[in-house]
Amino acid sequence: MPKHIILDSDPGIDDSLAILLALASPEIALDGISTIHGNASTAQVTRNALAILELAKAGDIPVYKGCDLPLVKESLLSPETHGNSGLGYAKLSEPQSRPQIKHGCDFLIESILSSPNEITLVAIGPLTNVAMAIRKEPRIVEKVKEVFIMGGAIQHAGNTTALAEFNTFVDPHSAHIVFHSGMPITLTPLDVTYQCIFLKADLDRLLRIDSPITKFIADATRFYMEFHDEYQKIDGCVINDPMTLALTFMPEICDYQELVVDVDISTGVGLGNTFADFYNYEKKAPNMKVAMGVRPRMFMELFLERIEKLAESLS
Amino acid sequence: MPKHIILDSDPGIDDSLAILLALASPEIALDGISTIHGNASTAQVTRNALAILELAKAGDIPVYKGCDLPLVKESLLSPETHGNSGLGYAKLSEPQSRPQIKHGCDFLIESILSSPNEITLVAIGPLTNVAMAIRKEPRIVEKVKEVFIMGGAIQHAGNTTALAEFNTFVDPHSAHIVFHSGMPITLTPLDVTYQCIFLKADLDRLLRIDSPITKFIADATRFYMEFHDEYQKIDGCVINDPMTLALTFMPEICDYQELVVDVDISTGVGLGNTFADFYNYEKKAPNMKVAMGVRPRMFMELFLERIEKLAESLS
Amino acid sequence: MPKHIILDSDPGIDDSLAILLALASPEIALDGISTIHGNASTAQVTRNALAILELAKAGDIPVYKGCDLPLVKESLLSPETHGNSGLGYAKLSEPQSRPQIKHGCDFLIESILSSPNEITLVAIGPLTNVAMAIRKEPRIVEKVKEVFIMGGAIQHAGNTTALAEFNTFVDPHSAHIVFHSGMPITLTPLDVTYQCIFLKADLDRLLRIDSPITKFIADATRFYMEFHDEYQKIDGCVINDPMTLALTFMPEICDYQELVVDVDISTGVGLGNTFADFYNYEKKAPNMKVAMGVRPRMFMELFLERIEKLAESLS
Amino acid sequence: MPKHIILDSDPGIDDSLAILLALASPEIALDGISTIHGNASTAQVTRNALAILELAKAGDIPVYKGCDLPLVKESLLSPETHGNSGLGYAKLSEPQSRPQIKHGCDFLIESILSSPNEITLVAIGPLTNVAMAIRKEPRIVEKVKEVFIMGGAIQHAGNTTALAEFNTFVDPHSAHIVFHSGMPITLTPLDVTYQCIFLKADLDRLLRIDSPITKFIADATRFYMEFHDEYQKIDGCVINDPMTLALTFMPEICDYQELVVDVDISTGVGLGNTFADFYNYEKKAPNMKVAMGVRPRMFMELFLERIEKLAESLS
Repeated sequence: MPKHIILDSDPGIDDSLAILLALASPEIALDGISTIHGNASTAQVTRNALAILELAKAGDIPVYKGCDLPLVKESLLSPETHGNSGLGYAKLSEPQSRPQIKHGCDFLIESILSSPNEITLVAIGPLTNVAMAIRKEPRIVEKVKEVFIMGGAIQHAGNTTALAEFNTFVDPHSAHIVFHSGMPITLTPLDVTYQCIFLKADLDRLLRIDSPITKFIADATRFYMEFHDEYQKIDGCVINDPMTLALTFMPEICDYQELVVDVDISTGVGLGNTFADFYNYEKKAPNMKVAMGVRPRMFMELFLERIEKLAESLS
Repeated sequence: MPKHIILDSDPGIDDSLAILLALASPEIALDGISTIHGNASTAQVTRNALAILELAKAGDIPVYKGCDLPLVKESLLSPETHGNSGLGYAKLSEPQSRPQIKHGCDFLIESILSSPNEITLVAIGPLTNVAMAIRKEPRIVEKVKEVFIMGGAIQHAGNTTALAEFNTFVDPHSAHIVFHSGMPITLTPLDVTYQCIFLKADLDRLLRIDSPITKFIADATRFYMEFHDEYQKIDGCVINDPMTLALTFMPEICDYQELVVDVDISTGVGLGNTFADFYNYEKKAPNMKVAMGVRPRMFMELFLERIEKLAESLS
Repeated sequence: MPKHIILDSDPGIDDSLAILLALASPEIALDGISTIHGNASTAQVTRNALAILELAKAGDIPVYKGCDLPLVKESLLSPETHGNSGLGYAKLSEPQSRPQIKHGCDFLIESILSSPNEITLVAIGPLTNVAMAIRKEPRIVEKVKEVFIMGGAIQHAGNTTALAEFNTFVDPHSAHIVFHSGMPITLTPLDVTYQCIFLKADLDRLLRIDSPITKFIADATRFYMEFHDEYQKIDGCVINDPMTLALTFMPEICDYQELVVDVDISTGVGLGNTFADFYNYEKKAPNMKVAMGVRPRMFMELFLERIEKLAESLS
Repeated sequence: MPKHIILDSDPGIDDSLAILLALASPEIALDGISTIHGNASTAQVTRNALAILELAKAGDIPVYKGCDLPLVKESLLSPETHGNSGLGYAKLSEPQSRPQIKHGCDFLIESILSSPNEITLVAIGPLTNVAMAIRKEPRIVEKVKEVFIMGGAIQHAGNTTALAEFNTFVDPHSAHIVFHSGMPITLTPLDVTYQCIFLKADLDRLLRIDSPITKFIADATRFYMEFHDEYQKIDGCVINDPMTLALTFMPEICDYQELVVDVDISTGVGLGNTFADFYNYEKKAPNMKVAMGVRPRMFMELFLERIEKLAESLS
């Protein structure tokens, strides 16, 4: 029985790869996508989500537009990382389908309440929709089966400020709400994602298949690789989001620690810092499971194989 | 033509008086009440709202339950000011009616969108519902006719911390969202409400009418007067909320300044401080109209007359 | 017996007037001046202090150079208010005398310790020197007779940010140290100083005496008046500092409240806010006496008479 | 030619070991010790410094009492780590000598100014004295030869809060001043010190020499080992301070990175967090050299050999 998954996402280059991996994985039934500002505006990422689904002949999967702005902070998008469209150099056709009328937050709430303990929420963008849903309908906390979150940098350096990872920095207040909500969270921070580099060689392997899918991946990641080379001296690109998705059905990719994790929502230099209390002198109960070790090639092999199969099936 | 008013409220002693004043005022068509934590829990204030409406034979006015918790901060209720029930020593019958199924935030959104430029929102509790509605559906900012808010202390001392007024301190992040949303706001801060004391003599005047309404007011305000006497050496009680409502149809009770107002959402001693930039060196556009002067007895006469009429009509 | 006064000061236009008033007042024995950054750099205000003393034939009064920078914050000077030299359009001769070798902080410490309960400290600039002295030698807290401070804005608007007065904003951490030190403080905030306007008519009265002193005052205050006109629509100029000095021997100029006063040293919008806890629910002991009411012309008459006498005696 | 070293210290168990290592090392001329609150009160650690010097027959080395309190925060001592006396279970005789009259800050200033580019400052407690010296006499920044600081936790967990190391948490504002002063700093954070465990076996090796020195070390570290066992599950104890001192003459114990390091002085959960900007997108110049790798046994061998020699020479 595949897992019922809702993806809360801001596609975004690596978000797109997560969507494709979901579509390529028989372990997953993708119930829908709620969109969120982050890598680009909510309007843009909603179009992107629809276009990627159509590209993969999955235009029947519903997309729900979520919040336009972070909860409290001012908006912060990342055109320098993901390009103005959010998809690097990739140019997808204007989608034929439209987003659903229902708001992304309500989609989360209604799905979780109507299928108690059956929905796996995979949140790979800023957490505004999830936080709004929790504040509007607190009962989802007990009814959601599990929540996988891409975000934070526990011992790793931040990728947006010295201390903060992008998703958390964009909306730290929402992360604070979600982290302290009581939901059963598995966090995938930069500590593991930055060890998984999608290399030029990996891309070349995919390109042996001639397909709109592989061409899209090539065009999107080329921009991303240029960013990583310029700013972080990384040869290749970090694909945070598909790894987070993969953990839903192949948890053995990572090693986990049960930790007491918090987010800094002060007005100081630490804003958006996601940190663990390792010594935990106050003996608080851990509030999440955090992926702190990773087998990068185990994930990359999975990713490449699945994308190859998807590309072939659609050629 | 009466104004269509939605009351977002946490009854609460003075909130109850605002509800009664609304029912007593022909200038107002009360479309519904959305409830919010604050003076007591959301569950409790929802029961209170229903019970007060029924007390005044207005059980047909719909009540919508709103958010249970502040957006970011931990919950803070005020049993020392309003009693455990939120209504002081008053004991109302368990209400016969139930709140609507629709969430308070959605009631705000749908009402405002479906009657553009016709809805007057009167928010006299913490602003969680209003902020959530704005973040979920930003178009309400342009569609709402006007927003009257009871909250803040501009030059006046705070009543909860040295700097912060209760409604704003309970959920400063929501106040920050609303204040910076662009909605057409009129603020009623402690600077004017603390000049309007409901005296023992005022209560005695009401009590010349024998009615469940006047008995309720007596039982509720007795508790409130004890609080004001003990903590603030005020002989009588401050009824912030009905004055805010009265300004919707009798603006001449107050004098106003167009001001640049902000809320402190830092983690320091100023948390929840609502302040104006009087010199405004940066020449920002004012974001609200603030009642800074008041004719207290003009309001009190209005209030007493209206309540007398209501009490008589229901006796 | 005149009071032994140490002036900690950043001259500065109104600081200069305080120095002149001290020299003109038989109730005061000015033991020395410690200088502090603020209206201009410490190097500049030290030169200014020496030059003003020499202008008034008081070059024998020792001047001690104090700290160059605020304790924790970055430096903030105010050339737009006091001109680049700190003295507006006034041009004083280069002073003949030199500052003492001893540091301003050590001058404070040694003076206070060697004359227990005899030294009145009048601090009319940012409080860096005083805070440093307290942290280096805590015993001065018990040994100083009294401390008069110009700073803060209790209910009045700030003059540097919406909430903060200049001296406190420049070095809020030092103000925090001093306010919580236990020293016997009398504070003169903007609440009273902004009611004391030195008018063009006052200046004209002084100018009836032809003297280097009156010419200096005219040249210095002309700049200051232009600032007040442009930024604050005040016709004349506020002379905060001489009033603070005057209170040492003519306390009846003001009315006082014993208050619990704190300074915001957070990283938020309230940084440097000096506020009182008027309701004081926690029943803390007051930490200072604050001038909250004022008889402006009582002060101004004193100031004008004294300056006239000084100018005449030096003509 | 031995290095002229001033030790700014709060002995403290591991501080005592640093003092002994300094006395045992021919590469070092210990010019004096300035004392600082931290592991115990300034009065107590001053007594401890004198007593340890006398224990090692080095009572001629001058000790200067420094500041009693952190710059801005409230006092925080650590009796649970170092015992009430600061020296665990060790009981030293009351010292015969007295601290110098000169203040610790002035000792730092005068030593550095009178021997330009010759003084190595080793600061192994909270940085109040050093910060005060910098603010009082900024010229020391250019005149000090080098500064070795024990403090901070860059990627390692804090040992006092989840994010903050003890010395920095006790006085983050002083650390902020020192880190941004321009002094040539080498930092020894928990990242390396927590890899250097002084084991029971190491202690046993020392105890083969019967000497007051080895007995002192045994009594002091026994308490410290109990703390580490209870709170941090470390079998042995971390001796941060002597390693910092050892780096002054044996830098090869560690590997270093030139980093942009800052301290969080906000009012939030990150207070006292010492962090590096590894990606350094803003291309700031590094402000210190940070020991990020270590050869633990290289240090431990040095430490044991030196202490053995010292103990033998004094038996």
